[in-house]
Amino acid sequence: MHCKFSKFAQTFTMSEQRTELEQLGEFGLIDLLTKDLQTYNPETLVGVGDDAAVLDIGNGMCQVVSTDLLVEGVHFDLTYMPLKHLGYKAVAVNVSDICAMNATPKQITVSLAVSNRFSLEALEELYAGIKIACADYNVDLVGGDTTSSTSGLFISVTALGVAAKEDICYRSGAKEFDLLVVSGDLGGAYMGLQVLEREKEVFKANPNIQPDLDGHDYILQRQLKPNARLDVVKYLKELGVKPTAMIDVSDGLSSEVLHLCKASQVGCHVYDEKLPIDAKTSMVAIDFNLDPSMCALNGGEDYELLFTVDQKDFELIQSNPNFTIIGHMTNAADGTYYIDKSGSAITLRAQGWKQF
Amino acid sequence: MHCKFSKFAQTFTMSEQRTELEQLGEFGLIDLLTKDLQTYNPETLVGVGDDAAVLDIGNGMCQVVSTDLLVEGVHFDLTYMPLKHLGYKAVAVNVSDICAMNATPKQITVSLAVSNRFSLEALEELYAGIKIACADYNVDLVGGDTTSSTSGLFISVTALGVAAKEDICYRSGAKEFDLLVVSGDLGGAYMGLQVLEREKEVFKANPNIQPDLDGHDYILQRQLKPNARLDVVKYLKELGVKPTAMIDVSDGLSSEVLHLCKASQVGCHVYDEKLPIDAKTSMVAIDFNLDPSMCALNGGEDYELLFTVDQKDFELIQSNPNFTIIGHMTNAADGTYYIDKSGSAITLRAQGWKQF
Repeated sequence: MHCKFSKFAQTFTMSEQRTELEQLGEFGLIDLLTKDLQTYNPETLVGVGDDAAVLDIGNGMCQVVSTDLLVEGVHFDLTYMPLKHLGYKAVAVNVSDICAMNATPKQITVSLAVSNRFSLEALEELYAGIKIACADYNVDLVGGDTTSSTSGLFISVTALGVAAKEDICYRSGAKEFDLLVVSGDLGGAYMGLQVLEREKEVFKANPNIQPDLDGHDYILQRQLKPNARLDVVKYLKELGVKPTAMIDVSDGLSSEVLHLCKASQVGCHVYDEKLPIDAKTSMVAIDFNLDPSMCALNGGEDYELLFTVDQKDFELIQSNPNFTIIGHMTNAADGTYYIDKSGSAITLRAQGWKQF
Repeated sequence: MHCKFSKFAQTFTMSEQRTELEQLGEFGLIDLLTKDLQTYNPETLVGVGDDAAVLDIGNGMCQVVSTDLLVEGVHFDLTYMPLKHLGYKAVAVNVSDICAMNATPKQITVSLAVSNRFSLEALEELYAGIKIACADYNVDLVGGDTTSSTSGLFISVTALGVAAKEDICYRSGAKEFDLLVVSGDLGGAYMGLQVLEREKEVFKANPNIQPDLDGHDYILQRQLKPNARLDVVKYLKELGVKPTAMIDVSDGLSSEVLHLCKASQVGCHVYDEKLPIDAKTSMVAIDFNLDPSMCALNGGEDYELLFTVDQKDFELIQSNPNFTIIGHMTNAADGTYYIDKSGSAITLRAQGWKQF
């Protein structure tokens, strides 16, 4: 990857070393690239490292900014992902990051790189999904860039939101004894993906056999049209509960719990028997010879909100059907544990989806 | 591009028509995709259609947001573009969009999609350039996303800036009789690209021949390390001049002048003899059998600021070495004209760089 022209190459001291990105993983890579980052503006309260950056806009208000890049063949497969759903999902996953800061999403920008395989009509489908999501989440599409790519489709979305400074929830605020809570249910998006991948193989073997997706509506929707939990942000406000820390479940529950523990310098106990798993998710998992709990822990793409609350909020959370208390935070020295069906404590590991 | 699974496809009414993107061009495509866009938040003052979106953040202040997506093989060629320069340029072109609103850049996010051809060391070079640009323009890198791509390198940058509401310059404010002004000089970046492309061909034919780039430092720098004119925004403030309209020169002067005319509903006269062209740019253009004026008009990537001012500001602008008055705005009914060396008026056409 050296510049081949020595005239320019000489101005750079490229080391001869070559470290493969697979050795690092996404988070290791980001840590290395963003170390020693300097900040020049006092308005920048938080940069890299949370679900979104936080900028002070005065009057006790903050803006939060998050960005995601979705790549064909890495993040989505157009064999079974309709473009309209893809457009919707691209917006929803970014709105989810804004919700994870306990903020209200306001605007998005959408940039596309598309190969000549795509027609105007295809992009109109994609934009139709984007516009539906904008209407659902009350966000304005305010800009973007559209360019050609040599192969495939790339979608880059940046989402902006606002919140009062004192309402913002970081990953770093969890305390020992706080309750660990998740909205909705887990593992459905992952099982939806398994069904779609299975039917894709059948379809590839014989395109005349139409895929058998009957009865899988719930888990397919979890995968193809995820819902950002803006409603949860509103419920929490109505209840008067401010989470001590929050993150959204994109890579998988175990990975997100560990992010909270690391940022907050606490340990945790997560209980297998408490994990909220929909009956349809469990049935399909068993069909696939998978443990439903493992799908919930490591599946990812559920886009539920995972947060911690002070014990004083136990009653309010416990009695709300949107929430499930799945564990509690402990002293960092006590470690991060998953308590399995037999009651044994197993060290929690992030086995979420790796892309490198 | 239909989803192949009828179960999902049936929920969409995809037309059978197929319109190729090349038929539309970038601006035509954006117009079609963003027509009928609804806005849900009163804070969104301006969305798609200017160099940046404008958001009201209260207290008479606005935030401006711009985004660009750079694609390997479309926007840059790593044969002669060192990764450090590429990182710098990716930031500079976005900062330039913020400057074009007469705003001060504050933060950027950078998302990357990279194939396994790239090592950690390569990305560290890219980030070194990003960090140098951040220091030069006083902007904070506050977030991003790093993912794998199936081929090539994709860089998506979003830039945020601030300005007092009354200071913001839109494309739409130019009036009849306003002076048309450009900063710096034009055509250099294009000639730099021509030299690099020529030497690339020599190098491809025989990799033992080192490229002959001697004496081309100025135009090579214009291409490889463009400078966003944040200094011009400051000069204008110091002079007490607020442009009536402004845009940056990314696609080529003629294309940008036409954007101003269309948005402001005015015509123009642009004078060949007034175009600011550096002597080195002219010499290389003549070497390549190109008309230097055509390179200045259609070359693109100069990232200078093009703006209009009221005639009352003539003296202030005229006496400043950073600025050149290249024409004036006319009544829309009078048309958009380029006055060539012989004094003939020719209809101005956007022949800037087309990517589709």
